[in-house]
Amino acid sequence: MARQGRSIINRLAATAALLVTLGSRGQEAPKPAPANVERWRVSHAAAIVRELADFVALPNLASDRPNIERNAEHLVGLLRGRGIEARLLQEPEAPPAVFAELRSSAAKYTVVFYAHYDGQPVDPSQWTGSPWKPVLRDKPLEQGGREIPFPEDYSQLDEARLYGRSTSDDKAAIIAMLSALDALRAASAQPSVNLKFFFEGEEEAGSPHLRQFLEHNRDLLKADAWIFCDGPVHQSRRMEVVYGVRGSLGLELTLYGATRTLHDGHYGNWSPNPAALLAQLLSGMRDPDGRILIAGFYKRVRALTSAEWRAVAAVPDIDAPLRRSFGLARTEASNAPITERLLLPALNVRGLLAGHVGAQAANAIPTEARASIDFRLVPDQTPEEIKTLVEKHLKTRGYFVVHEAPDAETRLAHAPIVRAEWEAGYPGIRTAIELPLSRAVAKVVGDAAGGPIVQLPNMGGSLPLYLLHQVLAAPFVIVPIANHDNNQHAANENLRLRNLWDGINVFAALFSNLGPAWSAEVQRGK
Amino acid sequence: MARQGRSIINRLAATAALLVTLGSRGQEAPKPAPANVERWRVSHAAAIVRELADFVALPNLASDRPNIERNAEHLVGLLRGRGIEARLLQEPEAPPAVFAELRSSAAKYTVVFYAHYDGQPVDPSQWTGSPWKPVLRDKPLEQGGREIPFPEDYSQLDEARLYGRSTSDDKAAIIAMLSALDALRAASAQPSVNLKFFFEGEEEAGSPHLRQFLEHNRDLLKADAWIFCDGPVHQSRRMEVVYGVRGSLGLELTLYGATRTLHDGHYGNWSPNPAALLAQLLSGMRDPDGRILIAGFYKRVRALTSAEWRAVAAVPDIDAPLRRSFGLARTEASNAPITERLLLPALNVRGLLAGHVGAQAANAIPTEARASIDFRLVPDQTPEEIKTLVEKHLKTRGYFVVHEAPDAETRLAHAPIVRAEWEAGYPGIRTAIELPLSRAVAKVVGDAAGGPIVQLPNMGGSLPLYLLHQVLAAPFVIVPIANHDNNQHAANENLRLRNLWDGINVFAALFSNLGPAWSAEVQRGK
Repeated sequence: MARQGRSIINRLAATAALLVTLGSRGQEAPKPAPANVERWRVSHAAAIVRELADFVALPNLASDRPNIERNAEHLVGLLRGRGIEARLLQEPEAPPAVFAELRSSAAKYTVVFYAHYDGQPVDPSQWTGSPWKPVLRDKPLEQGGREIPFPEDYSQLDEARLYGRSTSDDKAAIIAMLSALDALRAASAQPSVNLKFFFEGEEEAGSPHLRQFLEHNRDLLKADAWIFCDGPVHQSRRMEVVYGVRGSLGLELTLYGATRTLHDGHYGNWSPNPAALLAQLLSGMRDPDGRILIAGFYKRVRALTSAEWRAVAAVPDIDAPLRRSFGLARTEASNAPITERLLLPALNVRGLLAGHVGAQAANAIPTEARASIDFRLVPDQTPEEIKTLVEKHLKTRGYFVVHEAPDAETRLAHAPIVRAEWEAGYPGIRTAIELPLSRAVAKVVGDAAGGPIVQLPNMGGSLPLYLLHQVLAAPFVIVPIANHDNNQHAANENLRLRNLWDGINVFAALFSNLGPAWSAEVQRGK
Repeated sequence: MARQGRSIINRLAATAALLVTLGSRGQEAPKPAPANVERWRVSHAAAIVRELADFVALPNLASDRPNIERNAEHLVGLLRGRGIEARLLQEPEAPPAVFAELRSSAAKYTVVFYAHYDGQPVDPSQWTGSPWKPVLRDKPLEQGGREIPFPEDYSQLDEARLYGRSTSDDKAAIIAMLSALDALRAASAQPSVNLKFFFEGEEEAGSPHLRQFLEHNRDLLKADAWIFCDGPVHQSRRMEVVYGVRGSLGLELTLYGATRTLHDGHYGNWSPNPAALLAQLLSGMRDPDGRILIAGFYKRVRALTSAEWRAVAAVPDIDAPLRRSFGLARTEASNAPITERLLLPALNVRGLLAGHVGAQAANAIPTEARASIDFRLVPDQTPEEIKTLVEKHLKTRGYFVVHEAPDAETRLAHAPIVRAEWEAGYPGIRTAIELPLSRAVAKVVGDAAGGPIVQLPNMGGSLPLYLLHQVLAAPFVIVPIANHDNNQHAANENLRLRNLWDGINVFAALFSNLGPAWSAEVQRGK
């Protein structure tokens, strides 16, 4: 998942995630199931890794049109080579999306499996090796992992890592799906649902044409559900099923002082100090525990159901090792669990800027003070409502709200003035955990994992999945397979091989068992 | 006056001052007195301007050792050429100070006149012309002033301006003093006080060796008072006498989040956001009206006396045109007068920095948030007490206070942590307006001005004049002569010729009349 143009920070965030040391949780790793898929996988491991490595070897920036198209064509080739009907969907100025379809005569439901084949921008100087020359290491680089040749026997290499851009985000998901199909065929098993595949080529660029792809291919993409295969599994290494995403809404606030920088000895305490005002304004919008103080902000927050709360209660506690890893003695709201915190809407201050600090500080009153905020929204909040509430809050606080830089006349007529610049934003969305679809996916993934899985009502991050609902009226479930410590969006992105094997098992299980599991859940609900 | 290394901002501040349009106040300009000084001045105007221009033509950055020494030697030459005993005072690594002395047989008091001969750094690209090639313009550049040749007759050129670095800050004061001496000699009048001159060569670099100069020359600089000739007169163009300066104390606050930048979707609302905490902390230190909320902060603020309040009440109201000039609809504390605001201690937020804003903003939690603050102190506050109060405030707010970057162990043991980095700072100082010295200076300057003058208990800015009190136990009064709209510290620094003429009158009056005026005030007080 991505936010356009924010790759450096994403890299840092991903690096941070990598360094979390949660200790050995091998005992919680999913167990192979079904047995014949696992057997097939063990004997074909070398070919699977080779197929992924060859795919990773194709540079895949969405902005690199010739190469991103080579990726798409390569992918069509991988599908057609398996006898699957595949083709490119085109939108002007967009990398193609790859669409494929595999119908099953007995299937009652049609499910679109989503993944993306483009990757995050790279800074080669930060990589050990080259982003698009995949190499195998016996363990993570951070633990002294050494490069090893691609072997024939992978039986002792569950903890080995394949390094390269998009090894885990998100080409692994695609190769795992294709391998799962191969394994089922080898066992002469037919998928239990009609399969459609939608592989996007610009997810890491912010999916700017996703709406168009969906709107222009409604019939093609018609389905009973989408299974969205992106992102890492839980930090506990348990397999994960996620039912929602938060929405996102960016806001830039600018407060104004005098039109010119003034000496604060000669004019301070008289000419308004926009930095001091900004502090006042922000502290009135969010308390130190993250509670948002804007009237009405929580009004549309949909309460979690008891089933959702039960799922949350079952999530392993990872807070203490996370705190340790991040150098935090305490977290917001008196160490409230991270899992619960990410279910709430949030006001994040992502930046402050006014005047100068440190050696550059001058005894002067800044002319402006700026804060960059992003809101994370949960169902049923909408960007439009939040914008209205925030601007009402600003007015209640005595501010004259403008949306462009105020002209001289405005500045002489109003004080204080705040400029509010809004990003477009989009709402969050959550598929009910009680739906037969949700229950069926959880059951199939849980059975394939052979142990407890993590179920989350929503992830903390944002993806524009409301589009699936808005354009196609399709419910979705997110089933990630990558290791959490994968350096996603950072240098030295990698895939833990055990996660690839688990992914093949999970997809094989979804392909072969989701149909009857879903029907059973529908039946149960009647 | 200066703050080392902050010249860009100072330039901006000075530019701002220049652009203030207060309308024509010619009627309030000081009237010539005494008549014979004015007559002498009129007939010697060309030579006076020439002498100032030649002095300005010497580049005078304190850091430019060869040139700053040429300035000092040139100045010694100007003094000795007048038969005044003059010499250089030396301190290691410091530009020399120029000391001169002129005793009067009948004088009862000894007064040191202070000025500085170094100038602010220059950015030649910002200048119209060259900083050290003085030119005359018929009016200010901003009003379309055109360069004119140096004439013989200056009678119609009161509003003309001499452009060049240090024309007004602070070489004009030196030339005005020398010209005043010449005028008195021409009238065969003897100074009424023993005169000492102390001309500093690194004031614009922050006077780093002033304490040493004073300590190592106690006997030489022994005096009953100092008259400090620097800075501009009031924006109303009235002549000004100032009895104090505020102290200054810089503070850099740094708050900490996680040790690594974290994705705010995945970790926001859980991992502390130092930018949000900083807003909270600052808004608890200062309210929107500039009132400082730190317990005990005002305890040592010396109340103004009734005489000081009377002086303040008589200061012309310049707030409305200042607001207009700075694009301000309103100022802090419900438009309370600037003159009153500058009598208070102040907490100025001079900078904020955390994460990124605008196009660089990332959906991330900053690792740190920083605020740069400078406090303006008034008598009898001391930097030491303020440091103690502020750190106590931080602790009361739950912060663990450190003075270095916290190590990993500290971060894991305490939250929240604030790093407080203090600049050395110094106290403010104020000479009582009721002193015979103060009353005598005001009377002499007022008589010379021939109209109402502005008397301020203290200026808003800071100068280390506490040293005069601490090292020499000498009271001081500040008598500036430059026009307020002089681009001090900025490009195109200039001197309004009327201010030079008024300065000569004022210094001549002080030299010839301060002795008896002072004695009279002492007598009156008995």
